[in-house]
Amino acid sequence: MSTQPARGMRDYLPEDVRRRDYVVGIIREVYDRYGFEPLETPAAENIETLLGKYGDEGNKLVFKILKRGEHEASGQADLALRYDLTVPFARVVAEYQAKLPKIFKRYQIQPVWRADRPARGRFREFYQCDIDAIGSTSPVVEAEQLAAVSEILNKLGFEQFSLRINHRGVLAGMLTWAEVPELLRSDALVALDKRDKIGDEGVRAELTSRGLSDSSAERLLTITAFLPAALEAEDEINNLRRQIGHIQAAADGLDNLEHIVRLSSTTSHVIVDKSLARGLSYYTGAIMEISVHDLPGSLGGGGRYDNLIGMFSGAQVPACGFSLGLERILVVMQERGMFTDEIEQSSVDVVVAALEEGAQVAAMETAIELRKSGKLRVDLYPDVVRKMDKVFKHVDHRRARFIAIIGGDEVASGTVTVRDVATKTKVTMPRSEVASFIGEP
Amino acid sequence: MSTQPARGMRDYLPEDVRRRDYVVGIIREVYDRYGFEPLETPAAENIETLLGKYGDEGNKLVFKILKRGEHEASGQADLALRYDLTVPFARVVAEYQAKLPKIFKRYQIQPVWRADRPARGRFREFYQCDIDAIGSTSPVVEAEQLAAVSEILNKLGFEQFSLRINHRGVLAGMLTWAEVPELLRSDALVALDKRDKIGDEGVRAELTSRGLSDSSAERLLTITAFLPAALEAEDEINNLRRQIGHIQAAADGLDNLEHIVRLSSTTSHVIVDKSLARGLSYYTGAIMEISVHDLPGSLGGGGRYDNLIGMFSGAQVPACGFSLGLERILVVMQERGMFTDEIEQSSVDVVVAALEEGAQVAAMETAIELRKSGKLRVDLYPDVVRKMDKVFKHVDHRRARFIAIIGGDEVASGTVTVRDVATKTKVTMPRSEVASFIGEP
Repeated sequence: MSTQPARGMRDYLPEDVRRRDYVVGIIREVYDRYGFEPLETPAAENIETLLGKYGDEGNKLVFKILKRGEHEASGQADLALRYDLTVPFARVVAEYQAKLPKIFKRYQIQPVWRADRPARGRFREFYQCDIDAIGSTSPVVEAEQLAAVSEILNKLGFEQFSLRINHRGVLAGMLTWAEVPELLRSDALVALDKRDKIGDEGVRAELTSRGLSDSSAERLLTITAFLPAALEAEDEINNLRRQIGHIQAAADGLDNLEHIVRLSSTTSHVIVDKSLARGLSYYTGAIMEISVHDLPGSLGGGGRYDNLIGMFSGAQVPACGFSLGLERILVVMQERGMFTDEIEQSSVDVVVAALEEGAQVAAMETAIELRKSGKLRVDLYPDVVRKMDKVFKHVDHRRARFIAIIGGDEVASGTVTVRDVATKTKVTMPRSEVASFIGEP
Repeated sequence: MSTQPARGMRDYLPEDVRRRDYVVGIIREVYDRYGFEPLETPAAENIETLLGKYGDEGNKLVFKILKRGEHEASGQADLALRYDLTVPFARVVAEYQAKLPKIFKRYQIQPVWRADRPARGRFREFYQCDIDAIGSTSPVVEAEQLAAVSEILNKLGFEQFSLRINHRGVLAGMLTWAEVPELLRSDALVALDKRDKIGDEGVRAELTSRGLSDSSAERLLTITAFLPAALEAEDEINNLRRQIGHIQAAADGLDNLEHIVRLSSTTSHVIVDKSLARGLSYYTGAIMEISVHDLPGSLGGGGRYDNLIGMFSGAQVPACGFSLGLERILVVMQERGMFTDEIEQSSVDVVVAALEEGAQVAAMETAIELRKSGKLRVDLYPDVVRKMDKVFKHVDHRRARFIAIIGGDEVASGTVTVRDVATKTKVTMPRSEVASFIGEP
């Protein structure tokens, strides 16, 4: 029988869990301080909740669960695994409308599942960390999410990153300017979203093959081209105003971006990037994405989606969200050596070991006393020690600072022999003094 | 479209998450201090990893996931949702044998899924909190797990509980004494495990219907009957020695129990309960269960299983584990009012609100300054305030202590008007003084 995890999924050994808990701890702390509240939804949703929300491609990637009992034989599926955190959140908002406050900000950190072809850095089970705010159309919402994300990236140790923002209205204006016909517009956004992977020529080929004229494709690639030597956000907005400000959707979008930029005065790294497209169809306003210097792709992104919740609740509820890609963050931080040993490695303060069976009760009591004394992390070597070599190996793995050894002499005199692992020195002392001895820094 | 969660599954609104995080936080802190290391496994396993591990009844309750792509139509399932944490742990131990230390203690806190018929307190998605230790047959392992669980229950506020222990060898001895034929023995254990639900007569009916003689059933019910006026553990062990000590398995089991009891000298609430059976077939030694006064059923249990890992690794690896039922614990604590308001309710320190559009940048900057000042939790009211009523409602929901109000006057003078929610008094002060004003207890 294979003992590997299922394809595209991973076991988290202790140091993997510790790395993830460290990052998640920082994310939660910041979101808490920004006033977001925690929320969780079940791993499985009724299948009709998920199907039809992610496009044809998405439908195929939803993991479907067989209906229980006799229906299993028929292959009928009635549940599906969570594909993202946004759709379940929209369902929750609709279900608990009466209970939730009008303006509600939540964070949600849970795994999602996609039946994608596994590849380097692409998994079938991965965590998302989402914030969403409902009930307000104010640009304060976007600016606050950018500020929170910026603080998280700073706290994790990222220095060279940018928070790119654009607006669906501005994109619509540029599509109009480039004379892209209505029918090709969502294809054009999907193609532009892949620009950093397939390049200008890739985008051009994809668009002309769908029937866009050469001149239109050229105009679109020109107007959406982003200069790496980034302009000040205000200048970029003014440039765009001159080019497409006569188109209403663009003018509104530019006003909105200007607002967000002004509100982000204390958030570094925010840049207006007219080339940012984002593939998802449900965005209706500002869109946002994190880019890290020297790293293709993004560490997360989001945007305003004022119509999605209405699909569940009937009533239109304005909403805006940002999703951090935890897996991507973990991979990058590990590759760049951003985790210290203290984060990755567990260490216990002391391993307690009994040298004979008659000393096991005293060893157990000592371990429990030390644990109860405060914050000491105490491991108890369960077997009677015949060879110290085995204990040393164990102590080495646990990165213990001390070994507390109890043999017949120690039991008789109520003492413990404490060995300092680094200096290899030993001191025998009354049992009652061990906690304060080890507790000293 | 229905907006309810899938049947038998639940949404966790903020106060549900906070309650669970509080309990999980205590559990993790204790397990960390006892030297257990964290481990996680994927939600889905290859289907053959799970099938055949939980008996026929269990196989039916495993949620099966359709194979992706064109196979979906055929109804073929190749993955299944995690049914417990023990089998995935056994797989992990086999897979990473070379990497893991010989003696390895892990904790794992993750949801599991069972296609059970939902009922009060029985869900299709629920969390388990497991500890397991591999590599040692020493009774220190069992005693240490009992000590950790006892400390957790104390910390959560449980006072009247017992940690019941028994041993599969002792049960085997009692079955021999009662002349239960080999073929009926596992049925007998399953029936005895249900005794507190179906009563003595239920057990008797179930056993005689399977062919056990009346006299054998009577003997079994008699010898396994537990007196509520609990004996001292040592006396119970000595009584059993007199009755079944001549049977080797029982004698060994009693020695083991005696060891565990002696090692548990500092762990209160440990009692030897010969009526404890536990249904799972993989136990090979001591078995353990938590009972809470006035509460049917248990809050968790475990035992030694020295053969399960061998099903994956080939090599026999001794192991012992204990699982806490988080859902049960949460329900009981809520019913008994064991959660304080501080645990359930979120509160922010201050809600910042702008009275006009021209004050939004100052409000945003103030909110970010306050957040960066330290530990303050700060909510920012996103809309421009037209009516204070709406803000008061929001402040009430967020249980804020203060409102920081910024209008045109405040912007002009670089001040903020801070309203104390409890006393309804207002003070206008320089923006730079707000953090220390609010920070005061």
